Amino acid sequence: MTYEAPVAQIEFILNHVVPFSEVRRTGLFAEATEETSSAILSEAGKMASQVLAPLNRNGDHTPARLENGKVRSSEGFADGFRAIAEGGWIGIAADPEYGGMGLPQALNMAVAEMTAGANLALQLNPLLTQGQIEALEHHASDALKALYLPKLISGEWSGTMNLTEPGAGSDVGALTSKAERNGDGTYSVSGQKIFITWGDSDVTSNVCHLVLARLPDGGKGTKGISLFMVPKLIPDESGNPGVANSLKVVSLEEKLGIHGSPTCVMSYEGATGWLVGEEHGGMAAMFTMMNCARLGVGVQGVGVAEAALQQAVAYATERNQMGPIIQHPDVRRMLATSRAEIFAARAICLACATAIDLETATGDADSAARAAFLTPIAKAYGTDVGCRVADTGVQVHGGMGYVEETGAAQYLRDVRITPIYEGTNGIQAMDLVGRKLADGGEAAMRLLDEILDDAKAAQAGHPDLANHVWQAAETLREATQAMLERSLPERFAGAVPYLHAFARVLGAHFHLRAAKAGGAQHVALAQVFVARVLPRFSADLVEAQAGLDDLTALSDAAMAGDFAA
Amino acid sequence: MTYEAPVAQIEFILNHVVPFSEVRRTGLFAEATEETSSAILSEAGKMASQVLAPLNRNGDHTPARLENGKVRSSEGFADGFRAIAEGGWIGIAADPEYGGMGLPQALNMAVAEMTAGANLALQLNPLLTQGQIEALEHHASDALKALYLPKLISGEWSGTMNLTEPGAGSDVGALTSKAERNGDGTYSVSGQKIFITWGDSDVTSNVCHLVLARLPDGGKGTKGISLFMVPKLIPDESGNPGVANSLKVVSLEEKLGIHGSPTCVMSYEGATGWLVGEEHGGMAAMFTMMNCARLGVGVQGVGVAEAALQQAVAYATERNQMGPIIQHPDVRRMLATSRAEIFAARAICLACATAIDLETATGDADSAARAAFLTPIAKAYGTDVGCRVADTGVQVHGGMGYVEETGAAQYLRDVRITPIYEGTNGIQAMDLVGRKLADGGEAAMRLLDEILDDAKAAQAGHPDLANHVWQAAETLREATQAMLERSLPERFAGAVPYLHAFARVLGAHFHLRAAKAGGAQHVALAQVFVARVLPRFSADLVEAQAGLDDLTALSDAAMAGDFAA
Repeated sequence: MTYEAPVAQIEFILNHVVPFSEVRRTGLFAEATEETSSAILSEAGKMASQVLAPLNRNGDHTPARLENGKVRSSEGFADGFRAIAEGGWIGIAADPEYGGMGLPQALNMAVAEMTAGANLALQLNPLLTQGQIEALEHHASDALKALYLPKLISGEWSGTMNLTEPGAGSDVGALTSKAERNGDGTYSVSGQKIFITWGDSDVTSNVCHLVLARLPDGGKGTKGISLFMVPKLIPDESGNPGVANSLKVVSLEEKLGIHGSPTCVMSYEGATGWLVGEEHGGMAAMFTMMNCARLGVGVQGVGVAEAALQQAVAYATERNQMGPIIQHPDVRRMLATSRAEIFAARAICLACATAIDLETATGDADSAARAAFLTPIAKAYGTDVGCRVADTGVQVHGGMGYVEETGAAQYLRDVRITPIYEGTNGIQAMDLVGRKLADGGEAAMRLLDEILDDAKAAQAGHPDLANHVWQAAETLREATQAMLERSLPERFAGAVPYLHAFARVLGAHFHLRAAKAGGAQHVALAQVFVARVLPRFSADLVEAQAGLDDLTALSDAAMAGDFAA
Repeated sequence: MTYEAPVAQIEFILNHVVPFSEVRRTGLFAEATEETSSAILSEAGKMASQVLAPLNRNGDHTPARLENGKVRSSEGFADGFRAIAEGGWIGIAADPEYGGMGLPQALNMAVAEMTAGANLALQLNPLLTQGQIEALEHHASDALKALYLPKLISGEWSGTMNLTEPGAGSDVGALTSKAERNGDGTYSVSGQKIFITWGDSDVTSNVCHLVLARLPDGGKGTKGISLFMVPKLIPDESGNPGVANSLKVVSLEEKLGIHGSPTCVMSYEGATGWLVGEEHGGMAAMFTMMNCARLGVGVQGVGVAEAALQQAVAYATERNQMGPIIQHPDVRRMLATSRAEIFAARAICLACATAIDLETATGDADSAARAAFLTPIAKAYGTDVGCRVADTGVQVHGGMGYVEETGAAQYLRDVRITPIYEGTNGIQAMDLVGRKLADGGEAAMRLLDEILDDAKAAQAGHPDLANHVWQAAETLREATQAMLERSLPERFAGAVPYLHAFARVLGAHFHLRAAKAGGAQHVALAQVFVARVLPRFSADLVEAQAGLDDLTALSDAAMAGDFAA
């Protein structure tokens, strides 16, 4: 099966659905013209389709393995990484001062979607490296920047994020890793970290770990945490990889999927580290790193969904059971719904990236709030769609989908991590109804107003679609108001369905814009979304408002199956 | 993680939710008293929890493999199969004349749920053997019955179903396997079959294949197909396994899950077969075999869901992230919804089995129609719930769910086959809106009338629950009427969402009955279902009635991502 990078689909969204033209009008991103963007996307798409996608099955067939404490990556992955690095794709959005291209995040995320769709396990490496670059750009000292950024941006070295510990996952503040001041400006970092993606690799000459740890005078919880740069090989005076640091890969996890991505248990034993940001101020840097990665993970979901759907459509076209099965109404329903959801998720992710770019270029607070509001939705909906479409892909293949040979099952196994890492989708939803509604719903209402205005304006040309979108947005506005009046635990109980409802309404809105700007096929796709996906937002909102009482009334024992009490 | 067989939950449903008491009142099943049933379920539950569940991970860790053309089963599976056979569990519902216990299907399915929950890969063997037993009981000659049934019922031999070929999956009529008359009453069977579950095994001394093939004068399509018994070892004059037949296992599939279940490519090369049923009448026997297996697969979904949920609840109780995560509203929501869906799916499966039993015992046409109507719903909803709950189980485990070590991912991988085999869930839904509504909706309406009456009667005690159920059933009745007026292709386009809606309404109805008969925890669970699961039936019905136009308007190219046209 060949993956074809969805360059035209992405360009259509950037040019007609999300306000990327506003990004182009800013001074900072004036270079990102339609022509330049198009050239960049085509080039990246070519690499994704021609270089990375053919390596995707290798990750599964020859998983990354640990040999004498060193990770050996899957066959061909070193070449694949090299192609990404040499294309300059790691640094698309990075600071030109250090070798980056300084282009908008929207283009970076578009490229990330294609590389992830082509080869998720491999793409995790540049994705995390980009997160590290962003954290260093915002929080590191000039000396650290000068030393690390050029190497990370060029892909000579790669970067990791070390947050999780056995007892500290979603509760980052519970971590026990320690750091001590060495007196020479460096620190000694000790502790065990788990789930470290690409914690070691033979595709780069050094691996740079950003590690969260607590100084002796760091208080409890998240406020006592500091962030350290802990390189695998300590750079020598000329900045080349020097002596080995006191850290090691203890083991690799055996996982459901992304076998080409080594997931490491890391041990730091008095490893030399350099502070990034302020002492006890590690969480701020971590959030910078995670925000970029959260959107990136949503985009991964979209990428894998695209690849899985392309394969399912190809199979359904070839497979004959009383005619090509793509002609069977139920198979058509599955494929069309998947295509409609992919469009919606992609548009939400690119809208989020566009808001980030506007914030970066203008410092505008509304854009910042928009980006912050859309990030958890993009992450959760993008990855939900990734899983849903990959699952549908297996189903469309029938028995052949359950056989590993076709690759349909690999997409499902690979993408299943995305609703979990970088904050589970439950955590994303809690962020949405907690922190992101903490402005009294201002950002949410501004977004809904825009949707309502758009829907009104579209009434003449597309009355049916526009009415559905208007009605849904109006209902969502009322539900948002009701959500604001609830206690935090009640909001949390309704968080996931509320996020789903918001994503469906946003998706319908973007479909409406596409119907206005595009051809007959965009209208048809919008109709599929409005008839088959949007209507589920009502039940989402019913559940979002169901409160907590029924969940409290049901005992833990009954949840386990014991109704005797 | 220990699996605890849900004996009390099953007994509650049999005694208070589905009309199993009516089965007990028939002459045929008078022995299945509450006491006897309870003893049987406890005994089977003990075996499932203590013998089969501890072997479940072995299937994954030491998959069945092919050595010199022979299947070597996973470690301990031979002992597990022996325990099932020696307990008499294969023949619970089989004819006592041949060594069966002659008990109701409801008890058989209850036991099947527990064995499947404990060890899906292993349980497939007795499940398919039971399907073969049933086919032989109804369609084989007395001589074949006398030879094969005692050995299959005792578990000395096992049985397989050979339908699928590379070009003939859902379209069984496209098969190309051939049979020729040998002139001595036997036949020569040739062809290749794929996806043959437990197509060979070292846990029984013989493997009996029921093979669909076409005689030279068999017409095209399903009407020209005959069914043959083709044993691996041809029984000698005393009925013991004799010379090897001309058949072989070509290879085993590498699958997403159920690694302990060998999925064989079988080749028949003039193998000696004996006709089962009439020449060209193989489909009737196949449907007998498949009907039993379809319900059995729905039950598998429920079984795995139960096991996965038990593990998720246990994990959520132990895992501390700012308190035990089972106390977090969103985790509670996931677990409670899963428990509510398992109850609904289990009740639907047992209601279906009860209808089969009433049909068997009384020959009553209404019971037959009820059983036929509920079978596709039980299969599809049971397996959907299986996948949904196993998926939720992974999510509740967070990162640990993605790591194979916990076993959460195995449940997801294993259960993912169930919406595919024995007719995909799409095929089930087409059966529901096609064949099962071909009576002008009589069976559906009779069921809905019952729900409406029940809801009315419950209004005094549980006004809120009863009103929700009544309203939903009334809406579903209208939607069913509308469905009947549509063309078949339009019905097919709406088949899956229609089936989902029906399952939710049925589930809510059974929850209402449980709330009436049970304690406070059953009321709480019913409230969870009515608040969080039932409301989705409205969107299901919107989609069920969306017709075919939007799916036709969207081109194949657009589904693949090309909107240019």
